[in-house]
Amino acid sequence: MTYSYVSHLYCPKCEKMYSTKNQNQLCECGSPLLVSYKMDELKEVFRPENLNGRSADLWRYHEILPVESEENVVSLGEGMTPIVKMEKIGHDMKIPNLYMKDEGLIPSGSFKSRGAAVGVSKAKELGVTELAMPTNGNAGAAWSLYSSRAGIKSTIVMPVDAPEITRKECMAAGANLFLVNGLIGDAGQIVARAVKDEGMFDASTLKEPYRIEGKKTMGLEIAEQFNWEVPDVILYPTGGGVGLIGIYKALRELQELGWIDADKMPRLVAVQSEGCAPIVKAWEEGKTHAEPWKDASTIAFGINVAKALGDFLILEGIRETNGCAISVSEESIMTELRAVSSMEGAYVCPEGAAAFAAARQLREQEWINDDDRVVVLNTGAGIKYPNTIQGDVVTLEPGDSVPKTKESVQ
Amino acid sequence: MTYSYVSHLYCPKCEKMYSTKNQNQLCECGSPLLVSYKMDELKEVFRPENLNGRSADLWRYHEILPVESEENVVSLGEGMTPIVKMEKIGHDMKIPNLYMKDEGLIPSGSFKSRGAAVGVSKAKELGVTELAMPTNGNAGAAWSLYSSRAGIKSTIVMPVDAPEITRKECMAAGANLFLVNGLIGDAGQIVARAVKDEGMFDASTLKEPYRIEGKKTMGLEIAEQFNWEVPDVILYPTGGGVGLIGIYKALRELQELGWIDADKMPRLVAVQSEGCAPIVKAWEEGKTHAEPWKDASTIAFGINVAKALGDFLILEGIRETNGCAISVSEESIMTELRAVSSMEGAYVCPEGAAAFAAARQLREQEWINDDDRVVVLNTGAGIKYPNTIQGDVVTLEPGDSVPKTKESVQ
Repeated sequence: MTYSYVSHLYCPKCEKMYSTKNQNQLCECGSPLLVSYKMDELKEVFRPENLNGRSADLWRYHEILPVESEENVVSLGEGMTPIVKMEKIGHDMKIPNLYMKDEGLIPSGSFKSRGAAVGVSKAKELGVTELAMPTNGNAGAAWSLYSSRAGIKSTIVMPVDAPEITRKECMAAGANLFLVNGLIGDAGQIVARAVKDEGMFDASTLKEPYRIEGKKTMGLEIAEQFNWEVPDVILYPTGGGVGLIGIYKALRELQELGWIDADKMPRLVAVQSEGCAPIVKAWEEGKTHAEPWKDASTIAFGINVAKALGDFLILEGIRETNGCAISVSEESIMTELRAVSSMEGAYVCPEGAAAFAAARQLREQEWINDDDRVVVLNTGAGIKYPNTIQGDVVTLEPGDSVPKTKESVQ
Repeated sequence: MTYSYVSHLYCPKCEKMYSTKNQNQLCECGSPLLVSYKMDELKEVFRPENLNGRSADLWRYHEILPVESEENVVSLGEGMTPIVKMEKIGHDMKIPNLYMKDEGLIPSGSFKSRGAAVGVSKAKELGVTELAMPTNGNAGAAWSLYSSRAGIKSTIVMPVDAPEITRKECMAAGANLFLVNGLIGDAGQIVARAVKDEGMFDASTLKEPYRIEGKKTMGLEIAEQFNWEVPDVILYPTGGGVGLIGIYKALRELQELGWIDADKMPRLVAVQSEGCAPIVKAWEEGKTHAEPWKDASTIAFGINVAKALGDFLILEGIRETNGCAISVSEESIMTELRAVSSMEGAYVCPEGAAAFAAARQLREQEWINDDDRVVVLNTGAGIKYPNTIQGDVVTLEPGDSVPKTKESVQ
């Protein structure tokens, strides 16, 4: 039994190939590398029926994941997060078939654990003993936790403004954690120096080629959960954009395998905040690459990425699927977060709320039609961002009665 | 197709029966009520094979859940949480077959969502429009979120010291939230008055009979995930104890159905903190009921319950399975939390950490044997309790280098 049909790494810019047996990072030309599989062999042996009875995690797709030996798998049970029908907010938006894929139900409470599970497993397979990465919080939390499980030392650098809970996760993992009085780009420079000086493996977004493979399982799962009939639109909150790149890659691979219709792709939507919208600007200007965004700032901290290394891949993914890029206001993020939480009982993260706000906006513009099946990625648990909910609460004394008005929450 | 084979409610103390068609709470005699199913019919039609292909959530067991009409199901995709092998901490404890069932991977980040999903669904089926409950935090969060999804108004009262994130969840849900300058017992009295004065449905622990049915799905899942060969020991952090009662009920029902061996029960362990251990005291004294614990206090806030309404059922569950009750020190909870997080990459909640600490203690006492398959319930996500992790972190300036010592986390 072949566990993985991984073949090689290739550069999507200059087409140079690399082995998956060595610790590779970027291509010589500076581009991220992508993983290729032996698709001709896979077509012969890999069928949807093979998945029956496998456990409900992302390793059910091990044939098209890059880890070659099962014993290197570092897993905390991540994946196969639920697809939840959103009747009420869907009705409110006039999108009757609105769904949320809830990436809050995953170790560390964010979808970053998918990339970390596969990336750390492959790092372990390749003999990595120490890695370093800059992060806006959630990725560092996930990578430090999975690294600990794998017995790999991790050095994590995050902005002082990153969500406090992600800091606690790195500390719980026993990571070498540092804050930087700046943005993720500043953290990246510190990590680059540590990598150069101390020979750590650079686990920065897209500087290692395997996290995409973890993220792509969101696309595999969506296809399986919709019984191999893909939805019409997928909205994805976009910072580094690895999830969108991964979902696009997954859908292309499923088409090649013949598991989904070769003529139908979901339209992929890259959602950003008005406070940091480099992909949207590039998209609107018809460019293939994005310019760095100045003074980037948004409450949706996970998508506060001024310059994404994979910008050209994000733009390709939305172009090739007839998708689009759209930015939403900070105010609409908070309004939508409250609406989704109170109407659906789903306390989503601000990044997820941004994607819901984008769905509403695209429906108003009739870019989304009323018969479209629409999937919003909620990329993490709202409980990781307790500051998004503010308000006064009445404190009673023992023996008191509940006030008649019942309007304690402002 | 019959969706549920629910039969009736019965009192485990006086054996009086009640209908599941009405809004029942406690028995006339003051005891909690339990749900009974048409087991003879179920034995004929319900087989493990029926579960194949069903979605990986707790509703896969709908035949032995109390909701009669599928349209009343209020779900956010809860259930079928992973069983994770704990190699390193298991080795450290000398329990080679140590597993964690991770209830952090569930809506609202705690196992309380199981009780809420089934309890709220049944409340909706029975026409409840407004409910109230006292809570130590997590149950209120779960019930308010599911209530919002169901269109049911909720009034939640929790101690001012309850974890702050659970407060935010209730607010996000749009609940009528009140704090009380006291303990959960004080919250209970306020709720009791509101129920009496304003006719709300009383959703207090065990005062409504259906949350047990949600919690019991942990037992069904453990049995299924171990391929219907149950493990030897299950450790459960015990406050109100509904999870333990539910797991015991599940295993008995599976024995009756013939899905698991009638001769083998896992030994159930009720784990408490030394700061609040009424069940342990009663167990050690050979009593069938527990006395209220004075000055109850523990960092594992979810098990800070001085008097459990279902104490006699908890004690029955551990007695009938040759289990036990054990208390662990506050210090051992924090030590184990750090150990599990840093060795396994699983940032567990303090209640879960208490159960790990108990496993270690019981192995040392040779109550657990080295060939036992042992399952620890981690009842919630560690990220809901960020204060459990303290320490200083070095802040760098842009352009700085990572200090050579790499010992930033104390």
